[in-house]
Amino acid sequence: MSPNVFQQNRVDSTVTVIDVADPADPRLDDFRDLNSVDRRPDLPSGKGLVIAEGVLVIQRMLASRFTPRAFLGTDRRLRELAGDLDGVAAPYYRVTAEVMAQVVGFHLNRGVLASASRPPELTLEQVLDGARTVAVLEGVNDHENLGSIFRNAAGLSVDAVVFGSGCADPLYRRSVRVSMGHVLRVPFARATHWPADLKILRDKGFQLLAMTPAASARTLADAMAAVGDQPVAILVGAEGPGLTERVMRICDMRVRIPMSRNTDSLNVATAAALAFYERTRLTGGGPQTSGSA
Amino acid sequence: MSPNVFQQNRVDSTVTVIDVADPADPRLDDFRDLNSVDRRPDLPSGKGLVIAEGVLVIQRMLASRFTPRAFLGTDRRLRELAGDLDGVAAPYYRVTAEVMAQVVGFHLNRGVLASASRPPELTLEQVLDGARTVAVLEGVNDHENLGSIFRNAAGLSVDAVVFGSGCADPLYRRSVRVSMGHVLRVPFARATHWPADLKILRDKGFQLLAMTPAASARTLADAMAAVGDQPVAILVGAEGPGLTERVMRICDMRVRIPMSRNTDSLNVATAAALAFYERTRLTGGGPQTSGSA
Repeated sequence: MSPNVFQQNRVDSTVTVIDVADPADPRLDDFRDLNSVDRRPDLPSGKGLVIAEGVLVIQRMLASRFTPRAFLGTDRRLRELAGDLDGVAAPYYRVTAEVMAQVVGFHLNRGVLASASRPPELTLEQVLDGARTVAVLEGVNDHENLGSIFRNAAGLSVDAVVFGSGCADPLYRRSVRVSMGHVLRVPFARATHWPADLKILRDKGFQLLAMTPAASARTLADAMAAVGDQPVAILVGAEGPGLTERVMRICDMRVRIPMSRNTDSLNVATAAALAFYERTRLTGGGPQTSGSA
Repeated sequence: MSPNVFQQNRVDSTVTVIDVADPADPRLDDFRDLNSVDRRPDLPSGKGLVIAEGVLVIQRMLASRFTPRAFLGTDRRLRELAGDLDGVAAPYYRVTAEVMAQVVGFHLNRGVLASASRPPELTLEQVLDGARTVAVLEGVNDHENLGSIFRNAAGLSVDAVVFGSGCADPLYRRSVRVSMGHVLRVPFARATHWPADLKILRDKGFQLLAMTPAASARTLADAMAAVGDQPVAILVGAEGPGLTERVMRICDMRVRIPMSRNTDSLNVATAAALAFYERTRLTGGGPQTSGSA
Protein backbone atom coordinates (compact mmCIF):
# COMPACT_ATOMS: atom_id res chain seq x y z
CA MET A 1 0.00 0.00 0.00
CA SER A 2 2.88 2.33 0.74
CA PRO A 3 4.65 3.99 -2.15
CA ASN A 4 7.91 3.24 -0.33
CA VAL A 5 8.75 -0.44 -0.68
CA PHE A 6 11.50 -0.05 1.90
CA GLN A 7 8.90 0.37 4.62
CA GLN A 8 8.52 -3.38 4.49
CA ASN A 9 12.18 -3.48 5.56
CA ARG A 10 13.19 -5.40 2.46
CA VAL A 11 14.54 -4.39 -0.91
CA ASP A 12 13.45 -6.97 -3.46
CA SER A 13 12.80 -9.17 -0.44
CA THR A 14 16.51 -9.85 0.05
CA VAL A 15 18.22 -7.08 2.01
CA THR A 16 17.33 -6.48 5.61
CA VAL A 17 16.75 -2.76 6.10
CA ILE A 18 16.58 -1.56 9.69
CA ASP A 19 15.53 2.01 10.42
CA VAL A 20 17.49 3.55 13.27
CA ALA A 21 16.66 6.93 14.80
CA ASP A 22 18.92 6.87 17.87
CA PRO A 23 22.54 7.70 17.07
CA ALA A 24 23.60 5.92 20.29
CA ASP A 25 22.18 2.59 19.06
CA PRO A 26 24.97 0.04 19.66
CA ARG A 27 24.22 -1.71 16.38
CA LEU A 28 25.89 1.27 14.69
CA ASP A 29 29.15 0.91 16.61
CA ASP A 30 31.15 -0.19 13.56
CA PHE A 31 30.74 3.34 12.23
CA ARG A 32 31.16 5.42 15.38
CA ASP A 33 33.54 8.43 15.58
CA LEU A 34 35.49 7.41 12.52
CA ASN A 35 37.86 10.35 12.63
CA SER A 36 38.96 9.88 16.21
CA VAL A 37 39.01 6.15 16.86
CA ASP A 38 40.67 3.20 15.30
CA ARG A 39 43.26 5.07 13.32
CA ARG A 40 45.33 1.91 13.31
CA PRO A 41 42.76 -0.84 12.82
CA ASP A 42 45.58 -3.20 11.86
CA LEU A 43 47.08 -3.11 15.35
CA PRO A 44 45.92 -5.41 18.14
CA SER A 45 44.27 -2.40 19.80
CA GLY A 46 42.23 -1.65 16.67
CA LYS A 47 38.84 -3.04 15.79
CA GLY A 48 40.26 -4.62 12.67
CA LEU A 49 37.39 -3.35 10.57
CA VAL A 50 37.63 -2.24 6.98
CA ILE A 51 35.36 0.70 6.14
CA ALA A 52 34.17 1.40 2.61
CA GLU A 53 32.70 4.82 1.82
CA GLY A 54 30.30 5.64 -0.96
CA VAL A 55 28.39 3.68 -3.56
CA LEU A 56 31.27 2.97 -5.94
CA VAL A 57 33.68 1.72 -3.28
CA ILE A 58 30.98 -0.41 -1.68
CA GLN A 59 30.25 -1.97 -5.06
CA ARG A 60 33.94 -2.87 -5.31
CA MET A 61 33.87 -4.30 -1.78
CA LEU A 62 30.89 -6.46 -2.74
CA ALA A 63 32.92 -7.81 -5.66
CA SER A 64 35.96 -8.52 -3.44
CA ARG A 65 37.02 -11.06 -0.84
CA PHE A 66 35.95 -8.57 1.88
CA THR A 67 32.44 -9.49 3.00
CA PRO A 68 30.38 -6.61 4.41
CA ARG A 69 28.98 -7.18 7.87
CA ALA A 70 26.87 -4.00 8.10
CA PHE A 71 25.86 -0.93 6.13
CA LEU A 72 25.01 2.53 7.45
CA GLY A 73 23.42 4.97 5.07
CA THR A 74 20.63 7.16 3.91
CA ASP A 75 17.57 6.06 2.02
CA ARG A 76 18.86 7.70 -1.15
CA ARG A 77 22.02 5.60 -1.15
CA LEU A 78 20.05 2.46 -0.34
CA ARG A 79 18.10 3.03 -3.56
CA GLU A 80 21.32 3.54 -5.53
CA LEU A 81 22.76 0.31 -4.12
CA ALA A 82 19.58 -1.74 -4.22
CA GLY A 83 20.59 -3.82 -7.24
CA ASP A 84 24.00 -4.59 -5.74
CA LEU A 85 22.63 -5.65 -2.37
CA ASP A 86 20.52 -8.46 -3.76
CA GLY A 87 21.35 -11.56 -1.74
CA VAL A 88 23.68 -9.75 0.67
CA ALA A 89 23.31 -10.99 4.23
CA ALA A 90 24.51 -7.91 6.13
CA PRO A 91 21.86 -5.50 7.44
CA TYR A 92 21.44 -1.97 6.05
CA TYR A 93 20.94 0.45 8.94
CA ARG A 94 18.93 3.23 7.35
CA VAL A 95 19.32 6.65 8.98
CA THR A 96 18.89 10.31 8.17
CA ALA A 97 21.93 12.34 7.15
CA GLU A 98 21.77 14.03 10.56
CA VAL A 99 21.87 10.79 12.52
CA MET A 100 24.63 9.54 10.26
CA ALA A 101 26.71 12.65 10.98
CA GLN A 102 26.20 12.17 14.71
CA VAL A 103 27.32 8.55 14.58
CA VAL A 104 30.30 9.06 12.28
CA GLY A 105 31.33 12.34 13.89
CA PHE A 106 31.29 14.46 10.73
CA HIS A 107 29.12 15.05 7.70
CA LEU A 108 29.85 12.39 5.10
CA ASN A 109 28.44 13.45 1.78
CA ARG A 110 28.99 10.05 0.23
CA GLY A 111 25.99 9.04 2.35
CA VAL A 112 26.73 5.37 2.88
CA LEU A 113 29.32 3.19 4.61
CA ALA A 114 29.99 -0.51 4.81
CA SER A 115 32.06 -2.36 7.40
CA ALA A 116 33.87 -5.64 6.85
CA SER A 117 36.05 -7.83 9.01
CA ARG A 118 39.53 -8.58 7.76
CA PRO A 119 39.84 -11.92 6.04
CA PRO A 120 43.10 -13.84 6.53
CA GLU A 121 45.95 -12.11 4.72
CA LEU A 122 47.18 -13.60 1.48
CA THR A 123 50.69 -15.04 1.43
CA LEU A 124 53.49 -13.83 -0.78
CA GLU A 125 53.31 -17.12 -2.71
CA GLN A 126 49.56 -16.67 -3.27
CA VAL A 127 49.82 -13.19 -4.75
CA LEU A 128 52.87 -14.00 -6.88
CA ASP A 129 51.28 -17.08 -8.43
CA GLY A 130 50.77 -16.28 -12.10
CA ALA A 131 51.75 -12.61 -11.63
CA ARG A 132 53.85 -10.93 -14.34
CA THR A 133 54.08 -7.41 -12.89
CA VAL A 134 54.13 -6.60 -9.18
CA ALA A 135 54.77 -3.45 -7.17
CA VAL A 136 56.93 -3.75 -4.05
CA LEU A 137 56.73 -0.95 -1.48
CA GLU A 138 59.19 -0.07 1.27
CA GLY A 139 58.50 2.63 3.86
CA VAL A 140 55.40 3.98 2.13
CA ASN A 141 53.72 5.22 5.28
CA ASP A 142 51.22 7.70 3.86
CA HIS A 143 47.67 6.42 3.49
CA GLU A 144 46.84 8.58 0.49
CA ASN A 145 49.94 7.52 -1.38
CA LEU A 146 49.15 3.87 -0.62
CA GLY A 147 45.61 4.32 -1.91
CA SER A 148 46.84 6.06 -5.07
CA ILE A 149 49.34 3.28 -5.72
CA PHE A 150 46.54 0.71 -5.61
CA ARG A 151 44.35 2.78 -7.91
CA ASN A 152 47.23 3.10 -10.36
CA ALA A 153 48.05 -0.60 -10.05
CA ALA A 154 44.47 -1.52 -10.89
CA GLY A 155 44.34 0.77 -13.90
CA LEU A 156 47.78 -0.07 -15.25
CA SER A 157 47.78 -3.87 -15.19
CA VAL A 158 49.79 -4.54 -12.03
CA ASP A 159 48.92 -8.02 -10.75
CA ALA A 160 49.81 -7.64 -7.07
CA VAL A 161 51.35 -5.41 -4.42
CA VAL A 162 53.97 -6.62 -1.93
CA PHE A 163 54.71 -4.74 1.29
CA GLY A 164 58.20 -4.54 2.67
CA SER A 165 58.88 -2.94 6.02
CA GLY A 166 57.64 0.45 7.17
CA CYS A 167 54.42 0.70 5.19
CA ALA A 168 51.13 2.04 6.50
CA ASP A 169 48.00 -0.09 6.71
CA PRO A 170 46.52 -0.33 3.19
CA LEU A 171 43.09 -1.08 4.63
CA TYR A 172 42.82 2.14 6.62
CA ARG A 173 39.71 4.08 5.63
CA ARG A 174 41.53 6.82 3.76
CA SER A 175 43.57 4.32 1.74
CA VAL A 176 40.43 2.46 0.79
CA ARG A 177 38.78 5.71 -0.31
CA VAL A 178 41.72 7.14 -2.27
CA SER A 179 42.22 3.76 -3.97
CA MET A 180 38.59 3.99 -5.16
CA GLY A 181 38.16 0.58 -3.54
CA HIS A 182 40.91 -1.08 -5.56
CA VAL A 183 42.86 -1.92 -2.42
CA LEU A 184 40.08 -4.44 -1.81
CA ARG A 185 40.60 -6.04 -5.21
CA VAL A 186 44.27 -5.89 -6.17
CA PRO A 187 45.88 -8.77 -4.23
CA PHE A 188 48.53 -7.79 -1.71
CA ALA A 189 50.80 -9.57 0.75
CA ARG A 190 53.38 -8.62 3.34
CA ALA A 191 56.96 -9.82 3.22
CA THR A 192 57.56 -11.62 6.51
CA HIS A 193 61.33 -11.26 6.22
CA TRP A 194 62.51 -8.01 4.77
CA PRO A 195 64.38 -7.64 2.54
CA ALA A 196 65.28 -11.36 2.55
CA ASP A 197 61.93 -12.29 0.98
CA LEU A 198 62.97 -10.53 -2.21
CA LYS A 199 64.77 -13.80 -2.88
CA ILE A 200 61.36 -15.44 -3.28
CA LEU A 201 60.59 -13.05 -6.13
CA ARG A 202 63.97 -13.63 -7.72
CA ASP A 203 63.54 -17.41 -7.48
CA LYS A 204 60.27 -17.05 -9.36
CA GLY A 205 62.09 -15.28 -12.17
CA PHE A 206 61.17 -11.67 -11.34
CA GLN A 207 63.59 -8.95 -12.38
CA LEU A 208 63.87 -6.53 -9.45
CA LEU A 209 63.82 -2.87 -10.52
CA ALA A 210 64.63 -0.26 -7.85
CA MET A 211 63.19 3.19 -8.57
CA THR A 212 65.56 5.99 -7.57
CA PRO A 213 66.20 9.61 -8.57
CA ALA A 214 69.95 8.89 -8.86
CA ALA A 215 71.39 10.28 -12.10
CA SER A 216 73.52 7.13 -12.53
CA ALA A 217 70.46 4.87 -12.79
CA ARG A 218 69.11 3.61 -16.12
CA THR A 219 66.15 5.40 -17.60
CA LEU A 220 62.77 3.77 -17.15
CA ALA A 221 62.39 3.18 -20.89
CA ASP A 222 65.82 1.52 -21.17
CA ALA A 223 65.23 -0.63 -18.10
CA MET A 224 61.83 -1.93 -19.18
CA ALA A 225 63.14 -2.67 -22.66
CA ALA A 226 65.98 -4.67 -21.08
CA VAL A 227 63.52 -6.63 -18.94
CA GLY A 228 61.39 -7.46 -21.98
CA ASP A 229 58.74 -10.04 -21.23
CA GLN A 230 60.30 -11.41 -18.06
CA PRO A 231 58.26 -11.00 -14.86
CA VAL A 232 59.10 -7.71 -13.19
CA ALA A 233 58.92 -6.32 -9.67
CA ILE A 234 58.89 -2.51 -9.46
CA LEU A 235 60.25 -1.37 -6.09
CA VAL A 236 59.46 2.09 -4.72
CA GLY A 237 60.33 3.75 -1.43
CA ALA A 238 58.86 6.61 0.55
CA GLU A 239 59.09 10.16 -0.75
CA GLY A 240 62.19 11.73 0.64
CA PRO A 241 64.32 8.80 1.80
CA GLY A 242 63.39 6.48 -1.07
CA LEU A 243 64.43 2.82 -0.99
CA THR A 244 67.05 1.81 1.53
CA GLU A 245 70.49 1.10 0.17
CA ARG A 246 70.36 -2.51 1.34
CA VAL A 247 67.25 -3.07 -0.74
CA MET A 248 68.71 -1.35 -3.77
CA ARG A 249 71.79 -3.57 -3.54
CA ILE A 250 69.63 -6.68 -3.80
CA CYS A 251 67.88 -5.40 -6.94
CA ASP A 252 68.91 -6.20 -10.49
CA MET A 253 68.73 -2.66 -11.78
CA ARG A 254 68.42 0.91 -10.52
CA VAL A 255 65.93 2.84 -12.58
CA ARG A 256 65.14 6.54 -12.83
CA ILE A 257 62.49 8.69 -14.43
CA PRO A 258 64.11 11.36 -16.59
CA MET A 259 63.34 14.64 -14.83
CA SER A 260 63.52 18.28 -15.79
CA ARG A 261 66.37 20.31 -14.43
CA ASN A 262 66.02 21.70 -10.89
CA THR A 263 63.18 19.49 -9.76
CA ASP A 264 63.18 17.01 -6.97
CA SER A 265 61.46 13.68 -7.22
CA LEU A 266 57.84 13.12 -8.17
CA ASN A 267 55.23 11.93 -5.72
CA VAL A 268 55.80 8.22 -5.01
CA ALA A 269 52.41 7.15 -6.42
CA THR A 270 53.05 9.18 -9.58
CA ALA A 271 56.52 7.68 -10.00
CA ALA A 272 55.01 4.22 -9.56
CA ALA A 273 52.33 5.03 -12.15
CA LEU A 274 54.96 6.03 -14.69
CA ALA A 275 56.80 2.75 -14.12
CA PHE A 276 53.57 0.75 -14.39
CA TYR A 277 52.74 2.65 -17.59
CA GLU A 278 56.13 2.02 -19.16
CA ARG A 279 55.68 -1.65 -18.39
CA THR A 280 52.21 -1.82 -20.01
CA ARG A 281 53.50 0.23 -22.92
CA LEU A 282 55.98 -2.46 -23.84
CA THR A 283 53.96 -5.52 -22.94
CA GLY A 284 50.70 -4.54 -24.55
CA GLY A 285 48.85 -2.63 -21.85
CA GLY A 286 46.21 -5.17 -21.01
CA PRO A 287 43.16 -6.41 -22.81
CA GLN A 288 41.81 -3.05 -23.96
CA THR A 289 44.97 -1.99 -25.73
CA SER A 290 44.17 -3.63 -29.01
CA GLY A 291 40.65 -2.17 -28.95
CA SER A 292 41.76 1.16 -30.37
CA ALA A 293 39.64 2.38 -33.26
CA MET B 1 77.87 39.49 23.30
CA SER B 2 74.90 37.23 23.04
CA PRO B 3 75.34 33.73 21.64
CA ASN B 4 72.18 34.32 19.63
CA VAL B 5 72.92 36.61 16.71
CA PHE B 6 69.24 37.00 16.04
CA GLN B 7 68.88 39.02 19.22
CA GLN B 8 70.32 41.87 17.25
CA ASN B 9 67.25 41.52 15.01
CA ARG B 10 69.39 40.88 11.97
CA VAL B 11 70.60 37.75 10.21
CA ASP B 12 73.86 38.54 8.47
CA SER B 13 72.79 42.16 8.88
CA THR B 14 70.27 41.83 6.05
CA VAL B 15 66.99 40.37 7.23
CA THR B 16 64.81 42.24 9.66
CA VAL B 17 63.76 39.87 12.43
CA ILE B 18 60.95 41.07 14.67
CA ASP B 19 60.06 39.09 17.77
CA VAL B 20 56.32 38.98 18.41
CA ALA B 21 54.76 37.55 21.57
CA ASP B 22 51.16 38.70 21.16
CA PRO B 23 49.18 36.53 18.74
CA ALA B 24 46.73 39.40 18.24
CA ASP B 25 49.47 41.66 16.83
CA PRO B 26 48.01 43.12 13.61
CA ARG B 27 51.35 42.78 11.84
CA LEU B 28 50.62 39.04 11.70
CA ASP B 29 47.27 39.47 9.93
CA ASP B 30 48.50 37.95 6.66
CA PHE B 31 48.67 34.60 8.45
CA ARG B 32 45.57 34.71 10.63
CA ASP B 33 43.02 31.86 10.76
CA LEU B 34 44.25 30.29 7.55
CA ASN B 35 41.79 27.42 7.63
CA SER B 36 38.68 29.51 8.01
CA VAL B 37 39.25 32.72 6.07
CA ASP B 38 40.16 33.58 2.56
CA ARG B 39 39.38 30.25 0.99
CA ARG B 40 39.00 32.04 -2.33
CA PRO B 41 41.78 34.62 -2.28
CA ASP B 42 41.36 35.04 -6.03
CA LEU B 43 37.90 36.56 -5.65
CA PRO B 44 37.35 40.28 -5.05
CA SER B 45 36.34 39.45 -1.46
CA GLY B 46 39.62 37.65 -0.82
CA LYS B 47 42.85 39.16 0.43
CA GLY B 48 44.63 38.12 -2.73
CA LEU B 49 47.58 36.78 -0.80
CA VAL B 50 49.65 33.80 -1.76
CA ILE B 51 50.84 31.73 1.21
CA ALA B 52 53.91 29.51 1.04
CA GLU B 53 54.41 26.88 3.76
CA GLY B 54 57.69 25.37 4.82
CA VAL B 55 61.32 25.92 4.01
CA LEU B 56 61.40 24.23 0.59
CA VAL B 57 58.33 26.00 -0.78
CA ILE B 58 59.54 29.35 0.56
CA GLN B 59 62.87 28.79 -1.18
CA ARG B 60 60.95 28.26 -4.42
CA MET B 61 58.90 31.40 -3.78
CA LEU B 62 62.11 33.37 -3.31
CA ALA B 63 63.28 32.12 -6.71
CA SER B 64 59.97 33.05 -8.39
CA ARG B 65 58.18 36.18 -9.57
CA PHE B 66 56.21 36.17 -6.27
CA THR B 67 57.91 38.55 -3.86
CA PRO B 68 57.38 37.79 -0.17
CA ARG B 69 55.96 40.63 1.88
CA ALA B 70 56.23 38.95 5.30
CA PHE B 71 57.38 35.77 7.01
CA LEU B 72 55.98 34.16 10.14
CA GLY B 73 57.97 31.41 11.74
CA THR B 74 59.95 29.90 14.53
CA ASP B 75 63.56 30.55 15.32
CA ARG B 76 64.53 27.08 14.08
CA ARG B 77 63.12 27.74 10.61
CA LEU B 78 64.74 31.19 10.53
CA ARG B 79 68.09 29.47 10.96
CA GLU B 80 67.30 27.00 8.18
CA LEU B 81 66.31 29.83 5.84
CA ALA B 82 69.00 32.30 6.86
CA GLY B 83 71.10 31.82 3.73
CA ASP B 84 68.09 32.26 1.47
CA LEU B 85 66.89 35.44 3.17
CA ASP B 86 70.02 37.39 2.46
CA GLY B 87 68.94 40.68 0.90
CA VAL B 88 65.22 40.00 1.27
CA ALA B 89 63.29 43.11 2.26
CA ALA B 90 60.26 41.50 3.94
CA PRO B 91 60.34 41.19 7.74
CA TYR B 92 60.56 37.85 9.51
CA TYR B 93 58.11 37.80 12.44
CA ARG B 94 59.72 35.37 14.85
CA VAL B 95 57.32 33.59 17.19
CA THR B 96 57.10 30.47 19.30
CA ALA B 97 55.31 27.43 17.90
CA GLU B 98 52.48 28.16 20.36
CA VAL B 99 51.97 31.74 19.17
CA MET B 100 52.17 30.55 15.59
CA ALA B 101 49.42 27.98 16.20
CA GLN B 102 47.22 30.66 17.78
CA VAL B 103 47.67 33.01 14.84
CA VAL B 104 47.27 30.42 12.10
CA GLY B 105 44.49 28.54 13.90
CA PHE B 106 46.14 25.13 13.90
CA HIS B 107 49.53 23.57 14.55
CA LEU B 108 51.67 23.88 11.47
CA ASN B 109 54.63 21.57 11.74
CA ARG B 110 56.37 23.10 8.77
CA GLY B 111 57.07 25.96 11.18
CA VAL B 112 57.31 28.84 8.75
CA LEU B 113 55.06 30.74 6.34
CA ALA B 114 55.58 33.48 3.78
CA SER B 115 52.94 35.76 2.30
CA ALA B 116 53.14 37.42 -1.11
CA SER B 117 50.86 39.69 -3.06
CA ARG B 118 49.75 38.51 -6.47
CA PRO B 119 51.74 39.98 -9.31
CA PRO B 120 49.86 40.77 -12.53
CA GLU B 121 48.83 37.56 -14.28
CA LEU B 122 50.79 36.46 -17.31
CA THR B 123 49.01 36.50 -20.66
CA LEU B 124 48.45 33.47 -22.84
CA GLU B 125 50.88 34.91 -25.38
CA GLN B 126 53.56 35.36 -22.69
CA VAL B 127 53.42 31.77 -21.46
CA LEU B 128 53.22 30.26 -24.95
CA ASP B 129 56.23 32.17 -26.21
CA GLY B 130 58.93 29.59 -26.87
CA ALA B 131 56.92 26.78 -25.26
CA ARG B 132 57.01 23.30 -26.85
CA THR B 133 54.79 21.40 -24.40
CA VAL B 134 51.88 22.90 -22.48
CA ALA B 135 49.12 21.48 -20.31
CA VAL B 136 45.61 22.89 -20.75
CA LEU B 137 43.09 22.31 -17.97
CA GLU B 138 39.31 22.51 -18.12
CA GLY B 139 37.11 22.15 -15.02
CA VAL B 140 39.94 21.04 -12.74
CA ASN B 141 38.39 22.38 -9.56
CA ASP B 142 40.28 20.42 -6.92
CA HIS B 143 43.19 22.23 -5.29
CA GLU B 144 45.21 19.08 -4.64
CA ASN B 145 44.87 17.90 -8.22
CA LEU B 146 45.92 21.34 -9.45
CA GLY B 147 48.97 21.29 -7.21
CA SER B 148 49.91 17.78 -8.33
CA ILE B 149 49.61 18.79 -11.97
CA PHE B 150 52.06 21.64 -11.43
CA ARG B 151 54.49 19.36 -9.60
CA ASN B 152 54.29 16.86 -12.45
CA ALA B 153 54.62 19.61 -15.05
CA ALA B 154 57.78 20.88 -13.36
CA GLY B 155 59.34 17.43 -13.17
CA LEU B 156 58.36 16.28 -16.64
CA SER B 157 59.42 19.21 -18.82
CA VAL B 158 56.09 20.97 -19.37
CA ASP B 159 56.75 24.61 -20.23
CA ALA B 160 53.45 26.20 -19.17
CA VAL B 161 49.94 25.57 -17.91
CA VAL B 162 46.84 27.17 -19.47
CA PHE B 163 43.53 27.39 -17.62
CA GLY B 164 40.26 27.02 -19.42
CA SER B 165 36.96 27.53 -17.64
CA GLY B 166 35.94 25.97 -14.34
CA CYS B 167 39.34 25.58 -12.70
CA ALA B 168 40.12 26.29 -9.08
CA ASP B 169 42.59 28.96 -7.99
CA PRO B 170 46.11 27.53 -8.49
CA LEU B 171 47.50 29.95 -5.90
CA TYR B 172 45.31 28.73 -3.07
CA ARG B 173 47.43 27.60 -0.12
CA ARG B 174 46.81 23.88 -0.59
CA SER B 175 47.67 24.01 -4.30
CA VAL B 176 50.90 25.80 -3.51
CA ARG B 177 51.77 23.18 -0.89
CA VAL B 178 50.89 20.09 -2.95
CA SER B 179 52.76 21.52 -5.94
CA MET B 180 55.86 21.73 -3.71
CA GLY B 181 55.97 25.39 -4.72
CA HIS B 182 56.15 24.68 -8.45
CA VAL B 183 52.91 26.57 -9.06
CA LEU B 184 54.99 29.65 -8.28
CA ARG B 185 57.54 28.76 -10.94
CA VAL B 186 55.84 27.01 -13.86
CA PRO B 187 54.28 29.86 -15.90
CA PHE B 188 50.50 29.79 -16.20
CA ALA B 189 47.82 31.90 -17.85
CA ARG B 190 44.05 31.92 -18.10
CA ALA B 191 42.20 31.73 -21.38
CA THR B 192 40.01 34.83 -21.52
CA HIS B 193 37.70 33.28 -24.12
CA TRP B 194 37.04 29.61 -23.66
CA PRO B 195 37.31 27.50 -25.67
CA ALA B 196 37.82 30.06 -28.45
CA ASP B 197 41.35 30.83 -27.23
CA LEU B 198 42.43 27.35 -28.23
CA LYS B 199 42.71 28.91 -31.68
CA ILE B 200 45.66 30.94 -30.37
CA LEU B 201 47.46 27.69 -29.58
CA ARG B 202 46.61 26.23 -32.95
CA ASP B 203 47.82 29.37 -34.74
CA LYS B 204 51.14 28.97 -32.95
CA GLY B 205 51.45 25.46 -34.35
CA PHE B 206 50.40 23.46 -31.27
CA GLN B 207 48.81 20.08 -31.84
CA LEU B 208 45.83 19.84 -29.47
CA LEU B 209 45.55 16.46 -27.74
CA ALA B 210 42.37 15.77 -25.74
CA MET B 211 42.78 13.16 -23.01
CA THR B 212 39.72 10.91 -22.68
CA PRO B 213 38.97 7.40 -21.45
CA ALA B 214 36.98 6.67 -24.64
CA ALA B 215 37.95 3.32 -26.15
CA SER B 216 37.82 4.83 -29.64
CA ALA B 217 40.62 7.31 -28.89
CA ARG B 218 44.21 6.74 -30.00
CA THR B 219 46.63 5.38 -27.46
CA LEU B 220 48.98 7.86 -25.83
CA ALA B 221 52.03 6.26 -27.42
CA ASP B 222 50.53 6.36 -30.92
CA ALA B 223 49.36 9.94 -30.50
CA MET B 224 52.69 11.30 -29.28
CA ALA B 225 54.53 9.46 -32.04
CA ALA B 226 52.17 11.08 -34.56
CA VAL B 227 52.82 14.53 -33.09
CA GLY B 228 56.56 14.03 -33.28
CA ASP B 229 58.49 17.20 -32.57
CA GLN B 230 55.64 19.64 -33.21
CA PRO B 231 54.57 21.76 -30.24
CA VAL B 232 51.88 19.98 -28.26
CA ALA B 233 49.09 21.01 -25.91
CA ILE B 234 47.84 18.24 -23.61
CA LEU B 235 44.24 18.92 -22.56
CA VAL B 236 42.76 17.31 -19.45
CA GLY B 237 39.37 17.71 -17.80
CA ALA B 238 38.06 17.09 -14.32
CA GLU B 239 37.79 13.58 -12.95
CA GLY B 240 34.35 12.28 -13.70
CA PRO B 241 33.03 14.57 -16.42
CA GLY B 242 36.34 14.94 -18.25
CA LEU B 243 36.71 17.46 -21.06
CA THR B 244 33.55 18.93 -22.51
CA GLU B 245 32.52 17.67 -25.91
CA ARG B 246 32.83 21.13 -27.46
CA VAL B 247 36.46 21.27 -26.39
CA MET B 248 37.17 17.76 -27.64
CA ARG B 249 35.70 18.68 -31.03
CA ILE B 250 38.18 21.54 -31.38
CA CYS B 251 41.15 19.26 -30.65
CA ASP B 252 43.24 17.51 -33.27
CA MET B 253 43.23 14.13 -31.61
CA ARG B 254 41.47 12.23 -28.83
CA VAL B 255 43.97 10.30 -26.77
CA ARG B 256 43.56 7.56 -24.18
CA ILE B 257 45.77 5.77 -21.70
CA PRO B 258 45.48 2.02 -22.18
CA MET B 259 43.78 0.76 -19.02
CA SER B 260 43.28 -2.62 -17.44
CA ARG B 261 39.88 -4.19 -17.76
CA ASN B 262 37.20 -3.12 -15.28
CA THR B 263 38.85 0.06 -14.08
CA ASP B 264 37.60 3.55 -14.42
CA SER B 265 39.87 6.46 -15.18
CA LEU B 266 43.01 7.38 -13.32
CA ASN B 267 43.30 10.48 -11.16
CA VAL B 268 43.52 13.55 -13.42
CA ALA B 269 47.00 14.52 -12.20
CA THR B 270 48.23 10.96 -12.76
CA ALA B 271 46.75 10.85 -16.25
CA ALA B 272 48.42 14.18 -17.01
CA ALA B 273 51.74 12.85 -15.67
CA LEU B 274 51.56 9.86 -17.99
CA ALA B 275 50.94 12.14 -20.96
CA PHE B 276 53.79 14.45 -19.93
CA TYR B 277 56.04 11.40 -19.52
CA GLU B 278 55.16 9.98 -22.93
CA ARG B 279 55.98 13.37 -24.42
CA THR B 280 59.39 13.56 -22.72
CA ARG B 281 60.03 9.95 -23.63
CA LEU B 282 59.88 10.76 -27.32
CA THR B 283 61.41 14.20 -27.27
CA GLY B 284 64.35 13.50 -25.05
CA GLY B 285 63.07 14.19 -21.57
CA GLY B 286 64.91 17.38 -20.84
CA PRO B 287 68.53 18.11 -20.10
CA GLN B 288 69.18 15.23 -17.70
CA THR B 289 68.08 12.50 -20.06
CA SER B 290 71.38 12.07 -21.76
CA GLY B 291 73.16 11.97 -18.41
CA SER B 292 72.48 8.28 -17.86
CA ALA B 293 75.49 6.29 -16.79
